[in-house]
Amino acid sequence: MHIHEFQEMMRQLYFKRDIERGVDGTYNWLVDEVAELGEELKKQTDKEATEKEFADVIAWLASLANVMGIDLEKAAISKYNLKCPKCHKAPCQCTF
Amino acid sequence: MHIHEFQEMMRQLYFKRDIERGVDGTYNWLVDEVAELGEELKKQTDKEATEKEFADVIAWLASLANVMGIDLEKAAISKYNLKCPKCHKAPCQCTF
Repeated sequence: MHIHEFQEMMRQLYFKRDIERGVDGTYNWLVDEVAELGEELKKQTDKEATEKEFADVIAWLASLANVMGIDLEKAAISKYNLKCPKCHKAPCQCTF
Repeated sequence: MHIHEFQEMMRQLYFKRDIERGVDGTYNWLVDEVAELGEELKKQTDKEATEKEFADVIAWLASLANVMGIDLEKAAISKYNLKCPKCHKAPCQCTF
């Protein structure tokens, strides 16, 4: 599934609620989901549970992009286009 | 671009560094990128800058999935498959 297709699916499922919640509320939910992923990574006992937490983070990122009117796929490809955006090499050769 | 193609591009660019950094370090970087996105959302002055912050979050999420051996696209579609995973309706009809 393309990134923009996933984002569009999130729009179909949640946009009305997302836009009512707004930028701050949707961002805060994303932060909570990232924290839940972190908790799950500490346990590392159940791959399915870990997958669900990854799913929630990309889902809320897509919801936030919908609220902001950002095309997540376009944004991702614009910055990361087969080379590192800092050193312009593939694989990355940054020395930091 | 498919979600798994983007994840594979991140693998080609960064996997050696990601795996050396490990789960905790890569997760912490994801948290930092989410915080940077939050700062950018408060400003909301520059759409291109906002897009770059969204790009960084999905990039680090993909890197973390690579370190964990998780297929982000599979995880996303397994949980969110054309209906809300909680109420099983599209669009979501959850009453919480």
